[in-house]
Amino acid sequence: MPTTNVYETLTEIAKRRGFFWPSFEIYGNIAGFTTYGDIGVKLKRNIEAQWREHFVRRQGFFEIEDPIVNSGKVFDASGHLANFKEYATACSQCGRGFRADHLIEEKTGTEHLEAQGGNAIKRLLAENNIKCPVCGGALKEPTLVLTMFQTQIGAIGGEVGYMRPETAQGMFTNFRRCYQANRERIPFAISQQGKVLRNEVSPRRGMHRLREFTIMEIELFFDPLNPTCKWLKDVESEKVRLITEEMEEKENNEPLELTIEEAVDKNLVLTEWQAYFMGIGKRFVESLGIPAERQQFRAHLPQERSHYSSQTFDHEVHTRSWGWIEVAGHANRTDYDLKAHQKGSGVDMSVLRKDGTRFIPYVIEPSYGLDRLTFVSMETAWEQRETPKEKRNVFHFPRNLAPYQISVQPLVTKDGLAEKAMNIYDSILADGYRAVFDDGGSIGRRYARQDEVGTPLAITIDYSTMEKGVLTLRDRDSWEQVASHVDELPAKLHAYFKGVDFMSLGPLVQRGGE
Amino acid sequence: MPTTNVYETLTEIAKRRGFFWPSFEIYGNIAGFTTYGDIGVKLKRNIEAQWREHFVRRQGFFEIEDPIVNSGKVFDASGHLANFKEYATACSQCGRGFRADHLIEEKTGTEHLEAQGGNAIKRLLAENNIKCPVCGGALKEPTLVLTMFQTQIGAIGGEVGYMRPETAQGMFTNFRRCYQANRERIPFAISQQGKVLRNEVSPRRGMHRLREFTIMEIELFFDPLNPTCKWLKDVESEKVRLITEEMEEKENNEPLELTIEEAVDKNLVLTEWQAYFMGIGKRFVESLGIPAERQQFRAHLPQERSHYSSQTFDHEVHTRSWGWIEVAGHANRTDYDLKAHQKGSGVDMSVLRKDGTRFIPYVIEPSYGLDRLTFVSMETAWEQRETPKEKRNVFHFPRNLAPYQISVQPLVTKDGLAEKAMNIYDSILADGYRAVFDDGGSIGRRYARQDEVGTPLAITIDYSTMEKGVLTLRDRDSWEQVASHVDELPAKLHAYFKGVDFMSLGPLVQRGGE
Repeated sequence: MPTTNVYETLTEIAKRRGFFWPSFEIYGNIAGFTTYGDIGVKLKRNIEAQWREHFVRRQGFFEIEDPIVNSGKVFDASGHLANFKEYATACSQCGRGFRADHLIEEKTGTEHLEAQGGNAIKRLLAENNIKCPVCGGALKEPTLVLTMFQTQIGAIGGEVGYMRPETAQGMFTNFRRCYQANRERIPFAISQQGKVLRNEVSPRRGMHRLREFTIMEIELFFDPLNPTCKWLKDVESEKVRLITEEMEEKENNEPLELTIEEAVDKNLVLTEWQAYFMGIGKRFVESLGIPAERQQFRAHLPQERSHYSSQTFDHEVHTRSWGWIEVAGHANRTDYDLKAHQKGSGVDMSVLRKDGTRFIPYVIEPSYGLDRLTFVSMETAWEQRETPKEKRNVFHFPRNLAPYQISVQPLVTKDGLAEKAMNIYDSILADGYRAVFDDGGSIGRRYARQDEVGTPLAITIDYSTMEKGVLTLRDRDSWEQVASHVDELPAKLHAYFKGVDFMSLGPLVQRGGE
Repeated sequence: MPTTNVYETLTEIAKRRGFFWPSFEIYGNIAGFTTYGDIGVKLKRNIEAQWREHFVRRQGFFEIEDPIVNSGKVFDASGHLANFKEYATACSQCGRGFRADHLIEEKTGTEHLEAQGGNAIKRLLAENNIKCPVCGGALKEPTLVLTMFQTQIGAIGGEVGYMRPETAQGMFTNFRRCYQANRERIPFAISQQGKVLRNEVSPRRGMHRLREFTIMEIELFFDPLNPTCKWLKDVESEKVRLITEEMEEKENNEPLELTIEEAVDKNLVLTEWQAYFMGIGKRFVESLGIPAERQQFRAHLPQERSHYSSQTFDHEVHTRSWGWIEVAGHANRTDYDLKAHQKGSGVDMSVLRKDGTRFIPYVIEPSYGLDRLTFVSMETAWEQRETPKEKRNVFHFPRNLAPYQISVQPLVTKDGLAEKAMNIYDSILADGYRAVFDDGGSIGRRYARQDEVGTPLAITIDYSTMEKGVLTLRDRDSWEQVASHVDELPAKLHAYFKGVDFMSLGPLVQRGGE
């Protein structure tokens, strides 16, 4: 079972060390908004770059950037204005809003209430005599409310606009421009990373459900008569853990373990492109430090799926804070969206086959949530290490994912040590590393500070540096220290961030200052 | 005088080749929104990275990411709800909205009308008998309208929120958390890059005035009694072109040319930190390919300055499309914002001097507009080169700023050339370059295509590659071609992107296929 203690401890560290904290804190936080500090921004950006490396750069996929505020016509055509809604109720006494299904679930334990429709929800709310959980007041009749943020475009005489709840619609409305820039070849894909907003009725659990967050999406367009993925072989031996629709139906939560190839052969994943992205996705999440056994793909039941989808898998990660949580959706969106925009705009979205027939492309979408991945990476990396003196927080981020890769610290600031350390720091920056200079407090306190933000390598400049050019390198994970000559530093840093064992970097030195 | 021809030609290329185009195009564009295509996203991201390199990474400044949607309390305290307004009028016939000062300026040529106040604007609108420029209808009485986007946070029973028109308020409201994470040392700075929205009444000129755009901002906090910038010497010999407040008053538009050091010594720039950022800014903009003589810093007149500023310089760039345009503001925001939030929130924003006295930090802000910089880089790089056959568009982006650095192309796709080319492409990607594979059409057409998106280097795989391992390297700028052995490619690419002359890469080969 999830424990809230882990989440509470982590959010305390996050606030203090600058990973993230509640937004508008000085005015009282509004639920669903988070602010990233220096450490958090860097961690998040590194994860985003890793995603682009796995999902975009190697494949040569297109990228776009579409606005956050959209014309209402986009979401009218896409079906969002009709479907992106929840049953909500407000307290007649204090005015607070709540999701009706959540209130019922909390009281009765019944799940997937949304699929049962509005009448069931109204009935269950009344039957269970549910009151406002904050003030105990009577609740109003639940109504369907739109959970997109609405605004007016134009300060005077404008039109209604909405903030996008997904980036995907940008890929559909801009499909023709991108298809032409790709010289009308298919299959091809468009990717987008960016902010999206969902006007949740009453968000809970902090980073787990935000109103404003960042997603990283790909829409892969293909011919349903030629659904082959030419790169499938690159991931076919990748092992994944799968909970199929059938297993989900039977509430069997012990995942199948099989390769991507087997998942395709057994028709558990119906489209090669979807299987390909699931394989890539598993590798990507592994690269964030999250092992295979803490990942699984869970099929959506038909009643859970979005209005556009024919098969969807959630990519789930096991957390100590919340148990299994969704970090991505892998959906087959069919030709639903392009057809909808063809109808809405009157613009032809069909493309030409070599045999002269026309078709509307089908779409496979992997969609990753960057904020949850950032939190999960942090949680996975976290260790509370007991020493005789303290409980030390250490974040074991993969070396290249860490917010800062290297800290540089003079033993003391006198006798030219600070200047020497600053020179070394400058040359490390010039080589492109993310580095931090730290000259405050005892060396031991500085090591502890770097452990707490997950900096893998510390370089200490002391009197032997001045005399003999010898530096001390200190490893975050083992707390071991080795000696290195300053001339060898560039080569050793290169080797270290390529992954060599820390102990291979030089002779062990007496550990001091922990 | 600016010519619109350049802008029109560039936007045509931008649409066709995927730099940018109007958003929601299939539903009819809404003014003030742009969509970036693949080439544009990459160019923009490279400029953003360059900014971070110049303004953040080397200095070790903090970064944060605050939400786009903000609590109304933030903008109430900051003064935006009272001040972020324009005089606007709507047509009584067609309903379209217009900025009253713009309509008067267009008819009469009078500038800086805003400073004259609402009564003057009302009078001038009536005196000049100004009608709706679209339908000729009568205009309503102008009123002050808020030019921030407004929304409701919470789908039911929520509160009013606003989309931020600058990222700066995030640095002020989160000042205390960052100051603590910085172990209460000052001066220090917080930076943020992100989307902002301004609900312009009637935006014109495409990329020049967007309703949704990206800014890159720094707020540097310092003690007004100790305003020394320790890095000033790094930029003191940097030459800048300055139009002072006094010159601006006299409408003298011929800038002074002087060094940053002289600008400080002569008290033309009043704060060292502001002068430092102006020097860094000039270098940054130069790194985008925009020469010093097409840059200047223009002082704001007192009546032009924002409600919070004591001295402001616009960093301007000369464009063929629009003449001089602002790409950044360098403002001294004083202690206005921290004081305002201290008053609004009741949270103490003061910090402690070593002598035990307390003060509210002063703030210097350089704020760069990423979209305008992207357009300006593109315009500056653009050449229309006449050949006997055609007018070829060539974008001479700096080598490392180009959307793609390298294109890889097999002469033909048979006899194993395509496979060989794909292997080379894969190894180039593995080395971290932004590369594109192109096997469509004649080699000459492929070179033309790469010129038109500014790819500096093309690598062609032909029969001599298969027989002798020899590749052809082709330069975007000179159209020269040299031969290179495939084993030497990694070293040559490294040298080329470090800046060596193209012709030093190998022996000249017979030019073919242009």
